[in-house]
Amino acid sequence: MTSHETACILNTADKEATIEIMIYFEDKDPVGPYRITVPPKRTKHLRFNELKEPEEIPRDTDYASTLVSDVPIIVQHNRLDSRQSENAILSTMAYSGG
Amino acid sequence: MTSHETACILNTADKEATIEIMIYFEDKDPVGPYRITVPPKRTKHLRFNELKEPEEIPRDTDYASTLVSDVPIIVQHNRLDSRQSENAILSTMAYSGG
Amino acid sequence: MTSHETACILNTADKEATIEIMIYFEDKDPVGPYRITVPPKRTKHLRFNELKEPEEIPRDTDYASTLVSDVPIIVQHNRLDSRQSENAILSTMAYSGG
Amino acid sequence: MTSHETACILNTADKEATIEIMIYFEDKDPVGPYRITVPPKRTKHLRFNELKEPEEIPRDTDYASTLVSDVPIIVQHNRLDSRQSENAILSTMAYSGG
Repeated sequence: MTSHETACILNTADKEATIEIMIYFEDKDPVGPYRITVPPKRTKHLRFNELKEPEEIPRDTDYASTLVSDVPIIVQHNRLDSRQSENAILSTMAYSGG
Repeated sequence: MTSHETACILNTADKEATIEIMIYFEDKDPVGPYRITVPPKRTKHLRFNELKEPEEIPRDTDYASTLVSDVPIIVQHNRLDSRQSENAILSTMAYSGG
Repeated sequence: MTSHETACILNTADKEATIEIMIYFEDKDPVGPYRITVPPKRTKHLRFNELKEPEEIPRDTDYASTLVSDVPIIVQHNRLDSRQSENAILSTMAYSGG
Repeated sequence: MTSHETACILNTADKEATIEIMIYFEDKDPVGPYRITVPPKRTKHLRFNELKEPEEIPRDTDYASTLVSDVPIIVQHNRLDSRQSENAILSTMAYSGG
């Protein structure tokens, strides 16, 4: 009954992207920032369940996320929701951070 | 045969968001505004069927909705349509109000 | 084996929207413009198969469409593709014309 | 177990669009550019698996793509993922290149 949320991140720049992720909830304080990096000219397939620091993301709770990057990146969100027989695909458009 | 439309709202700001929702139809006047609030740094899972004031949203009628917020928010629409065996996912991008 | 493409159009303005639709193909000239109107503060559920003038849209051919409106409108595209067992949902964001 | 990624490209301009496609991976250098053209006022249904030059796109590897066009175009991405029983639809909004 858990959601398996993932995001595909694309860094087309010539330098590594450092990305800070915040996780927001309905009834408690946000957690984060989680920090990940994406090498120059590479993609990264991020599984939110694999984020461990500063704390694991609870598996039975809805959440929303924001990503802030030091170089422009493109983020595509996907969600596999095991409560549904089929896939729920949530797509997010291009994103760039300063 | 009813649609179960929901929206996930994210308020990343430091102050509460007050949101006015208008519901538009094909053949009658719009209804609203419905008013909801989202606390600072929180998400809210809005079920349109739970909106009661100024009137319930008819369950057997297609409609479109607009949201106007006094602080910038992010809205993700989802629709579970029981006329289809699977989920119809309608995603809406970032939104900000003045 | 036909596609049943529809679009939900929302006109939140105080005046009627006149919309011109062009249909583009892979291997022949575009057809149109098709003209439809959406009353002020109303939605319209447009079925592309119902567009008849200047000519019917062929049912066995892929196409793309553009909409140009004289007042800002919001368009949500949906596609029921009978070649697939489930729904293919293609969503299009806000659109405004001059 | 391969993904069948496609993109529908719309060129509404009066001149041919020349498009350069780059393919990015998680753990190796990007490949490309692949070059395709779309005639004026035409659509093109692009199947990524059919891109052969400078090299075929590996079928068992996740990738991300960018498109740069010399005239403004509109790109809609779709993905049929054979690892899933149903379709994963990833939509991408309007795109324009200089």
